[in-house]
Parts: sequence; structure tokens; C-alpha cells
Amino acid sequence: MDPYAPIGIFDSGLGGLVMTKAFRKAIPDADFLYLGDTLHVPYGPRSAEAIYGFTQQAVEYLFGRGCPLVIIACNTASANALRRLQQTYLPTAYPDRRVLGVIVPTIEAAVASGHDNIGLIGTAFTIKSGTYEDELHKLNPNIQLHAKATPLLVPLAENNGIQYAEPVLRDYLEPLVDAGIDTLILGCTHYPLFLEAIRSILPPHVSIIAQNEVVPPKLVDYLRRHPEIKDRVSKKGTLKALLTDVTSTYQNTGEALLGEVMVFEKVELE
Amino acid sequence: MDPYAPIGIFDSGLGGLVMTKAFRKAIPDADFLYLGDTLHVPYGPRSAEAIYGFTQQAVEYLFGRGCPLVIIACNTASANALRRLQQTYLPTAYPDRRVLGVIVPTIEAAVASGHDNIGLIGTAFTIKSGTYEDELHKLNPNIQLHAKATPLLVPLAENNGIQYAEPVLRDYLEPLVDAGIDTLILGCTHYPLFLEAIRSILPPHVSIIAQNEVVPPKLVDYLRRHPEIKDRVSKKGTLKALLTDVTSTYQNTGEALLGEVMVFEKVELE
Repeated sequence: MDPYAPIGIFDSGLGGLVMTKAFRKAIPDADFLYLGDTLHVPYGPRSAEAIYGFTQQAVEYLFGRGCPLVIIACNTASANALRRLQQTYLPTAYPDRRVLGVIVPTIEAAVASGHDNIGLIGTAFTIKSGTYEDELHKLNPNIQLHAKATPLLVPLAENNGIQYAEPVLRDYLEPLVDAGIDTLILGCTHYPLFLEAIRSILPPHVSIIAQNEVVPPKLVDYLRRHPEIKDRVSKKGTLKALLTDVTSTYQNTGEALLGEVMVFEKVELE
Repeated sequence: MDPYAPIGIFDSGLGGLVMTKAFRKAIPDADFLYLGDTLHVPYGPRSAEAIYGFTQQAVEYLFGRGCPLVIIACNTASANALRRLQQTYLPTAYPDRRVLGVIVPTIEAAVASGHDNIGLIGTAFTIKSGTYEDELHKLNPNIQLHAKATPLLVPLAENNGIQYAEPVLRDYLEPLVDAGIDTLILGCTHYPLFLEAIRSILPPHVSIIAQNEVVPPKLVDYLRRHPEIKDRVSKKGTLKALLTDVTSTYQNTGEALLGEVMVFEKVELE
């Protein structure tokens, strides 16, 4: 019997490595297995059907590699596929296959902050899906959400373009500031990379919710409440990282986002 | 017998529609069939293996739809796959299947301009492949080529970001201007969209080679020299456009690049 049963982390590309770094810090003894779909990144502009197909295949693959728990770190994939995948892997039928997203824990953190005029930035698909709005209003129908698609941020992050982001961010954030938001959710794994520029543009009283800060404590809490999952996770503190396409640029960017040396292994999902 | 035998135009996404518009103007009576691989766009950052797989599948599909001639409008795909595909479809074995790229005709136009200090901008893959350099030095080994990867331009073009391009272009073009180029090749189908900003940054004596200007006359000339291909092409002046993924944004961007109303039809290649 293979005792390797890591927590799977799926992302459309490399952005989820920022979250992975935070997960490892929060749960240092757990094994983690990262899968980035660099063959198909970015997901944000694609159709619902395309995003679901890619996500379903990747999650299935991670279960096949022994993960008792898979976290969809990508907001676009979470917005599109999480509910459907959770219906597919019902705990009653698959007690050893859990899949979680990042949107609900992010919203819980935003609501807990006590503010009620929330701004959201994300990819074209994440915003158009309305998932954040639906989940937010389940918790509290009186909270206002002002959502803005910010499709240039992922390409800027992935092509050494962060230094060009300020005028882009200024245009994206202006309507949210004008709407009087008191909180801004960064609804994409890449966006913490723009934190400094975003902070400089927003009025000082606006709180920023970054997923690499708010989601890891939620995972710790989830595992505490679900010992049947926690006990299945193997605990040697390792990280393996798989990509569906590997180039030297992906290699370098991946190590920079993760903040450590890493050999990215190429895998074929089909 | 189906008489529909259009000229196939393949591109990794929507950028090839700029070229398609120019081809139709140059050869208005020919039928054209456009195929954009929007399910996998952008190709620029991906591995050679991934780009070849996508390109081979698309070209095969266009032949299957009756095209006697397929033009790979995407520079990244041309740089990667053209030679290998031309070896696969040797005229002796496949007299009714020709595949052409955009790099050699572009270089011929640059060399014909009589200048000898040529700059080139393109995607990460196009530049790293060295294809432009190899082809240029076959024609004239004394010409200097200064090549610069400009990976942010495609995402800026595809996400309504052209207005943010100037500082990015300034940084990209500065080393080429410092190297004393007298000509600049725009080595990507999207780049004519940045023509105005590029013109304002380059010194006035630097010539700009835009593929939507120089490639169509080369195709007219090719068809004149190859009546056996020209005669196979059906001539009702129609254009059909296929995409591997369709969204409302792709639909709107596609029509804007093409400059006419178009119904983009979704196709599955596998």
C-alpha cells in the first residue's frame, strides 16, 4: 500500500503557487501535490464548457494520484466547476474524495470583517459567472457587491509586466472607489502580486482581502472539523509540483512565485 | 462532389483575422476558411512540443475540410511547425495539400527593402526559435538581425489593453533603437494593432514591415506561379470562420479585427 496521500492543489497555471506557499506555511507537516494546467492557461477568457472540461480532468487526475482532498486554487475554475464537482463526488458515495474551492472561504473572511460595501476584482469568467455574488448573498443578502473584471492582470503577472500595472489598475479600480467600497476582494490567485500598487491606489480605509492570507487558516479549520479527511493526508511535509506543459520560463516563474527551488515535472492528463 | 475548396488560414487565436482581411482584399474572388485555436491561445509561451501538436492537428483539420492550401498565419506556429509539416506533406506525395507560412515572405520583403540592420519583435517562442535569423541568413548572411521578445503585446491586444502599450513598447524597442536598426519587422499577426504607437517611438527613418501589408502580395505571386494550386481553389469570394472555443468576447473581438460581421462557428478538432 502506498502511504502517499497528499493534499492536491489545482490551478490553471502558476498563480496557485502563491497560495501553495501559504498552505505549506499553515500546515507544514502535510504532503502537497500541485498541478498547474500550463498547457491551457489562462482560463479566464475561455468558455464555461472549456473550463469545466479542463478542471474536471485535472481534479480526477489528482484523485487518481492518491489525494484524499483537492483544493481548486483557481477562482475561475472554482466559479465554474466546484458545485458540479461537489455534486459528482458526494461524500456519501466518495468518502475519500473531497474537493474544495477558494471562493466561499474568501467571502466568509470578507463578511467577518463587518464591512458591507465590498469590491471584487477577478478574471472575465469569474466576474461574469456571478458566483461571488450568489455565495455572498447566501450569507448576507444586504451586502453590496461591486464587481469588476480585470483581464490584463494575469498576463501582466505572467510576462514580467507588473511594473506596467499601475495605470491599468487605476482604471480598473476607479469605478469601485467611486462606488464607495470599504473592502476589496482580490479574486484571483495572481493578484497578491499587485498588492503594493493596489494599496497605493485605494483610499487608506479600504481593507484588502488577499486569498493567500485568508484561505489557509480556513483550511486548517476545515481539517480540524473533518478528522476523517485530516487523518488520511500523509504527513512528511513534502511538495511535488506537476505541470501540463514545461518551459524554462514556466520553471523560473514557478520558482519565483513559490519562493523555493522546485523541479516541475511534466504530466499528460489525457 | 463538393466544389468547396477554400484557402485555409490557421492562427493560434484571433490575430490572424487581421491578415485574413488583407488576404481577402488581395484575392477577393477566392473562398477562405479561417480556423483560430482559441481553446489554446496564446501559443507564444508554450513548449515546442505543445505548439507542434496543436498546429499539426489544425492543419490536418483544414485539409480534411477540403483546403488545397493552408497558410499558417501565426508566426509562433510557423516558426515551430512549418518545416516539419512541409516535410510531412511533400508535393510529390500530396500534390493537393500545400502548407505555407508567413516568415519567409516577410523576410523577403525586409531584404528587398535594401536595409541591412533589421530589428524583429515577436512572441517568446518565435524569438527563441531563431527561425527568422536562420531564414534571413539563408538569403543574405551579412544582414544583422536584432531580435526582441515582446510577450505582453498579444495579451494587451486581446484584452482591450492597447491604450496601455506605450511604456511597454518604449522599453521593448529601446535596445533595438540603440542598436541602430533601419527596419523593424512586426513578427506577429497582432502587432499591426500597435502600429501607431510603434511609429511614434521609432526614429522616422526606420521602416516598419507589417505582415498584413507584405504577405498578401506574396500569396498573389505564389498562386500566379502555381496554377495547379490556384485552379483548385474555389472562387465564390466567401469567408467562413471557425474557432475551437467561442465566447461573446471572442465573437466581438473577432468582428472588430476582421472589420465585418461574422458568425464564428465552434469546432472540435480531436
